[in-house]
Amino acid sequence: MEKFKVTFYPDNLTIETEKDKTILSAAITAGVYINSACGGDGVCGRCKVVVKSGKVITQPNGALTLEEKRRHVYLSCLTTIHGDTEIEVPSESRLEFVNLTPQELELRLKGLYTDAEEIEHVAPGLTEKIFIHSPLATKHLLNLPKPSINDNTSDLERLYREVRKIQNIPVMQTGLANIRQLSELLRDSDWIVTVTLGKRNDTVEIVLVESGDTTKTNLGLCFDIGTTTISGQLVDLNTKKVLGTKATYNKQASFGSDVITRIIYAREEDGLLKLHNSVTDTMNQMIKELIQEHNIDLNDVTCILCAGNTTMTHLLLNVDPTYIRREPYIPTANFIPTIRAAEASISINPRGLLSCVPGVSSYVGGDTTAGVLSSGLYKENDLSLLIDIGTNGEIALGNKEFIIAAAASAGPAFEGSGVSCGMRASRGAIQKVNIDPKSFEIKYLTIAETKPRGICGSGYIDIIASMLKTGIIDKNGKIKIDDHRRVRKSESGKEFVIAFKEESDSTTDIVISEADIENLKRTKAAIYSASALLVRHMSLDFSSVKKIFIAGGFGTSLEIDSAIAIGLLPDLERSRFIFIGNSSLAGAREILLSYEATKLADKLARKITYLELSVDPAYMDEYMAALFFPHTDLKKFPSLRL
Amino acid sequence: MEKFKVTFYPDNLTIETEKDKTILSAAITAGVYINSACGGDGVCGRCKVVVKSGKVITQPNGALTLEEKRRHVYLSCLTTIHGDTEIEVPSESRLEFVNLTPQELELRLKGLYTDAEEIEHVAPGLTEKIFIHSPLATKHLLNLPKPSINDNTSDLERLYREVRKIQNIPVMQTGLANIRQLSELLRDSDWIVTVTLGKRNDTVEIVLVESGDTTKTNLGLCFDIGTTTISGQLVDLNTKKVLGTKATYNKQASFGSDVITRIIYAREEDGLLKLHNSVTDTMNQMIKELIQEHNIDLNDVTCILCAGNTTMTHLLLNVDPTYIRREPYIPTANFIPTIRAAEASISINPRGLLSCVPGVSSYVGGDTTAGVLSSGLYKENDLSLLIDIGTNGEIALGNKEFIIAAAASAGPAFEGSGVSCGMRASRGAIQKVNIDPKSFEIKYLTIAETKPRGICGSGYIDIIASMLKTGIIDKNGKIKIDDHRRVRKSESGKEFVIAFKEESDSTTDIVISEADIENLKRTKAAIYSASALLVRHMSLDFSSVKKIFIAGGFGTSLEIDSAIAIGLLPDLERSRFIFIGNSSLAGAREILLSYEATKLADKLARKITYLELSVDPAYMDEYMAALFFPHTDLKKFPSLRL
Repeated sequence: MEKFKVTFYPDNLTIETEKDKTILSAAITAGVYINSACGGDGVCGRCKVVVKSGKVITQPNGALTLEEKRRHVYLSCLTTIHGDTEIEVPSESRLEFVNLTPQELELRLKGLYTDAEEIEHVAPGLTEKIFIHSPLATKHLLNLPKPSINDNTSDLERLYREVRKIQNIPVMQTGLANIRQLSELLRDSDWIVTVTLGKRNDTVEIVLVESGDTTKTNLGLCFDIGTTTISGQLVDLNTKKVLGTKATYNKQASFGSDVITRIIYAREEDGLLKLHNSVTDTMNQMIKELIQEHNIDLNDVTCILCAGNTTMTHLLLNVDPTYIRREPYIPTANFIPTIRAAEASISINPRGLLSCVPGVSSYVGGDTTAGVLSSGLYKENDLSLLIDIGTNGEIALGNKEFIIAAAASAGPAFEGSGVSCGMRASRGAIQKVNIDPKSFEIKYLTIAETKPRGICGSGYIDIIASMLKTGIIDKNGKIKIDDHRRVRKSESGKEFVIAFKEESDSTTDIVISEADIENLKRTKAAIYSASALLVRHMSLDFSSVKKIFIAGGFGTSLEIDSAIAIGLLPDLERSRFIFIGNSSLAGAREILLSYEATKLADKLARKITYLELSVDPAYMDEYMAALFFPHTDLKKFPSLRL
Repeated sequence: MEKFKVTFYPDNLTIETEKDKTILSAAITAGVYINSACGGDGVCGRCKVVVKSGKVITQPNGALTLEEKRRHVYLSCLTTIHGDTEIEVPSESRLEFVNLTPQELELRLKGLYTDAEEIEHVAPGLTEKIFIHSPLATKHLLNLPKPSINDNTSDLERLYREVRKIQNIPVMQTGLANIRQLSELLRDSDWIVTVTLGKRNDTVEIVLVESGDTTKTNLGLCFDIGTTTISGQLVDLNTKKVLGTKATYNKQASFGSDVITRIIYAREEDGLLKLHNSVTDTMNQMIKELIQEHNIDLNDVTCILCAGNTTMTHLLLNVDPTYIRREPYIPTANFIPTIRAAEASISINPRGLLSCVPGVSSYVGGDTTAGVLSSGLYKENDLSLLIDIGTNGEIALGNKEFIIAAAASAGPAFEGSGVSCGMRASRGAIQKVNIDPKSFEIKYLTIAETKPRGICGSGYIDIIASMLKTGIIDKNGKIKIDDHRRVRKSESGKEFVIAFKEESDSTTDIVISEADIENLKRTKAAIYSASALLVRHMSLDFSSVKKIFIAGGFGTSLEIDSAIAIGLLPDLERSRFIFIGNSSLAGAREILLSYEATKLADKLARKITYLELSVDPAYMDEYMAALFFPHTDLKKFPSLRL
């Protein structure tokens, strides 16, 4: 096989690659993560690179301008390598894996615990609930009676005997690795040891035996594994305190921005493994930083609790997700047995345990179960709605009697994908605008208040709401005005300039096009109609819904009024809306800290009824009716002065 | 580090070795197994080799004659290598690892099942008992309902649901490896699969999921791991039939012939690992032959059940046995969790399970538990005694009410170690003699009726009994006659020729010396006094013992009259003695085939009371009194015409 050298700049990373390999694939091998919203189909145009020297062969596509072609810009997914090559990856084509800034973190993790908060109190406005503190891993100091001729039970049974004095454990397990070191360890410790007990599939495992008293150090991790963002916390299992929080982008984004493109990519050669490695790399890097910042030994972390959608959970465990997207949409497992974290390539104590929050179905995963748990929806007397707007949109409706849930194929537009100037909610993203109703001139607010680089989901919502209000667009999303310095025509219809390139940190003007608006309309329609269908399925209407929990990193920077104005959220009293931030992470942490919550999550995952929207004809009706700003049936939005 | 080439003949195996390494150690590395009864202490003189060329340095020792030194014979354990060396390993210094001949097998495994026998019937003379057939691994054909939108439970829960229709299993476990292949396998199999369920520490594990109907092939193994001999059987778990039986020497014998020398060796550099590898090599070779002979795929063997003494069990699992021999004699574990066989380097299906019969204490192991179980002693109305004479001598006394057990530090004399012409009970071993009371001329019977090569344990017993009867020795074991062609003096006292070298397959005369007789006297005294102490501990005497089960490979070729004549066995009606052969293997097989037997073994291991003889002053009294043929108190042997 012919091999070539490929060097990526500005990283200056060189790898050897085989002929016919795409630049995207070579970049991943080199550890250079390139944007690829469509997963390598040549459609999204995110993966542009400049070939500085060398021989490549590319395929025709509509994503490059003539000028770009002249500058040797190529789509890395459609271009194969046929000689030693030098490639420049421009910053706009890069996935950024830097941790979020404190402001960004606050945006994404609003509602999460700080150091002072405790598990019993979740988020303001939620029904108070108290779980018994009983973490996934517990530590116990044992002062073992020394053996004698008259008390000659073996080392292991001596340990069991003492553990059972503390706790009634019918089925106790111990791995061979611990047994192998036991005799020396007990004697070297003069029979004073600390055992770490882990809960594992209705049994208890002796995860660790340590010399002396180490009970003070008992650490665990909880993670929300999102399609786009991964959030994790280091938790003191004794005090229930959160020691540190991290959030970063999921490296899997190189393989496509939504779960469907990833499931498709998993069928490629080594695709599944690459996806698995990307997510575990991301998590391991976060874990490393968390423990370094808190001066902790990796071996002192003995358990990790993960919540993710069903596809993310499969990929974390290196389990093929193929049948999630093939009718009738069956995952390999909703209830994953607790395993050793090392089996999933997660670097904590090599004997440490990894547990996943159980899911409901292929498109309502453990993150939703965790959200239902942490929001307290399951114990509400009144009907409540949980809307988790992320890369996917999961909706749950219910109270203490019943819960039904559905997934809206919202698409990643609100995460910045598939829209011309979209970006994720990070530094430089426009998230709020003010449009002068006469001059149509614009003031905007960006994340971290830097020069604008693009528009994030909440920005798009606010922009569309303002454009509706000022009459720039009609209820169909078409731009009504022509003669204005911000309005111009492109091949794909009209577009409106939000920020000119001179005032921005971008090489082009930041615009919103009619095509973008159409795309965002479909996304909001998907979420609204999924919510509406759940309510209708119970023969109710929105007025019966007393609380609406808005979850997801996205949700926390959302203007409720704007979201109602575009018809994303139902038109209810504003006081019914409660931002709960990352409810998946909050739920994962509760499960990490309480066995009662673990059992409850199991119960909820079995109790939640999944509604498959794609096979429900009523869903298409609801969706079609919602393809209008705010809706075809204006009676549904009485508060809007229309 | 200086390295040298060492070549072993006649194998013609060359390895590189470091300076200062002993020849014994180099031989083990090369895969040449040399006899070493004392475990490398330079005491037993079994490891003689001829250095043909090269430079070696040896230590002074009394085990070599001048003539041997002249012939460049060295003790391989005391001789280190200091240059490229060629070494001849004579056949008498080799451990033979060939499988036993059918006759030998019959000798060692008398009482075992043949193809036609079933688990319910153990050995003649035993109380009949019936265990429910419920093997360690069971197979079940599942015809899974195909998933649909309305029945969209995941693949794994679908499997669980179907399994639970067959059997009520509260705690079911599945390894990640099986989950990873599940989705493709179910669909490729058109939802018709066979699951193998394994019992694992009070839970049930899905060990295997196979396409289609494979329920007909359900195979398991049971092993008795003896200090000297390892016996194993391939069992059809469906029909309970034994498909094949193997017995061979434990390769660990290279590191010493008794458990104590092996425990000491385990502390040497890599000692534990070498001992572990030796026993697993032996077992894997047996497994390979068993499956090849029966045309079986290794992957179809999904479980293995092992019984061994406590030291053997530790070494099988690569667990340090050090504290077994240090007061107060504590093993790491008597109850070993069921593990994956691969964790103990045992080659069956990579997901297959390995279970060990639980032991009682450091010197009463799982082999005794298995023996108590298979003999049926635990359900006898009358007082019964189980004597297992192997490299160690384990004794259990009891009935359906109670069981007490002890280990006699018998030493390996009956296995052929520590006696001048001793050998294991294999081809050419003298096992029976007839001495003419007048001429003192001898007729002997050898195993496989070949020319004599040495004397095995039962041979020694018969020889001493005959020498006593004919007046050649006195009750102390001293040779009384002088003037006979078979009698001569050596440095260590008198010796009596059993077979001259001309009539034998040996390079020297086959003799029994006064030192040998002394050694054998101590061994028989240890076993007798342990039995006597157990009876005395219960304030009883031997007359209350209604059944005496004689177990162990050795036991099956024993002449009861001779054993009583020398005072090895108590002087009771001959009809009370029952040969039960390898009761450890029989017990292991019952446990493999019946979960009821598994639970019973657990119960027995907890129920059996261990008596530590070494700390009981009465034991020394009993032992001293037994250091006489048959005993100092002749009233205990009334049937002997003394």
